[in-house]
Amino acid sequence: MVTLDFYYDFGSPNAYFAWKALQGVSARTGLEVVMHPVLIGGIFKSTGNQPPWQAFGNVPNKMKYMQLEIQRFIKDHNLTAFKFNSAFPVNTLLSMRAAIAAQQAGVHDVFYPAVFKAIWEEDKDISQPEVLAQLLTDAGLDGAALVAATQTAEVKQALMDATQACVDRGAFGLPTFFLGDEMYFGKDRVWQIEQAVKRA
Amino acid sequence: MVTLDFYYDFGSPNAYFAWKALQGVSARTGLEVVMHPVLIGGIFKSTGNQPPWQAFGNVPNKMKYMQLEIQRFIKDHNLTAFKFNSAFPVNTLLSMRAAIAAQQAGVHDVFYPAVFKAIWEEDKDISQPEVLAQLLTDAGLDGAALVAATQTAEVKQALMDATQACVDRGAFGLPTFFLGDEMYFGKDRVWQIEQAVKRA
Repeated sequence: MVTLDFYYDFGSPNAYFAWKALQGVSARTGLEVVMHPVLIGGIFKSTGNQPPWQAFGNVPNKMKYMQLEIQRFIKDHNLTAFKFNSAFPVNTLLSMRAAIAAQQAGVHDVFYPAVFKAIWEEDKDISQPEVLAQLLTDAGLDGAALVAATQTAEVKQALMDATQACVDRGAFGLPTFFLGDEMYFGKDRVWQIEQAVKRA
Repeated sequence: MVTLDFYYDFGSPNAYFAWKALQGVSARTGLEVVMHPVLIGGIFKSTGNQPPWQAFGNVPNKMKYMQLEIQRFIKDHNLTAFKFNSAFPVNTLLSMRAAIAAQQAGVHDVFYPAVFKAIWEEDKDISQPEVLAQLLTDAGLDGAALVAATQTAEVKQALMDATQACVDRGAFGLPTFFLGDEMYFGKDRVWQIEQAVKRA
């Protein structure tokens, strides 16, 4: 079975789009996607990069095209549940630490779909501890314990370490993928990943 | 027959890559590609954008990934003749004005492949009038006349007008393509263009 390492932060709508689109790739090819929580702000800080809405905020034609590509991706992949988050850009430090805590508790595979859905389908402000705890509880997890765990030094350090490891592999933004050692960046590389998996 | 408007500047290696890759799309689908010379520097100035090697010059991971994508594109499309130009970034004001002159003289379809080949396969410095004139003459055109025409007010103005028209359509960089009113940006959209042509 071919495995894809998928580095994500809930704050990136393109990570949500890629995650949804990759479900189709997995269905068609058997690709196994392994989700790795990292902090996008940490990647930007560490690499000198910045988010596209900041880098291109003064280039209206580019901003318009980015919106067009999002609409095209939504249409091509029939992502009708997507709703832009009204709190964007959302501070994801809490939710990414909670993702690490969920990994450590062995519940990450239930955790991350619930949070992606909350931020990019249900317009929830996942930076609020009570909002995050409630949606995790609704997903059948121990929301209070996962939110409490975000304040431990161990979880804080583990998120920093995971983020640095991602940068060390070559990332400069998210979503970033590795198929073996081959790096791919951005939602628009999903088709290339599918081609590469089919060739493998 | 489906027609693609392709806005190019010789200074963009990605325009060369896309031009080569689109030859395969045309062979497979019958797509007609119409090449439109514009000035990339004018687009950047007019839109507030900047070239990627400038925007991301201080983000080593991003620069490395851009190189990786170039190598991947070369491999995927078997573009073995490509050679990076040692004069990069090349000033293309002369060659893009000459492209306009070639359009006016009805020889643009002979002109642009010769110049793309010179800059991205033969490492020629096409910013030098004598180099440009010679390679055009070698391609069977009146190189001296085309280079001389670049100094006319009419040609200078026509390039400015073409560039502004491209920006007015939504461009912020090159290569930019329009399939009807649908805009696509960058060499990596060639596959999407092929999909769209096949659906049309």
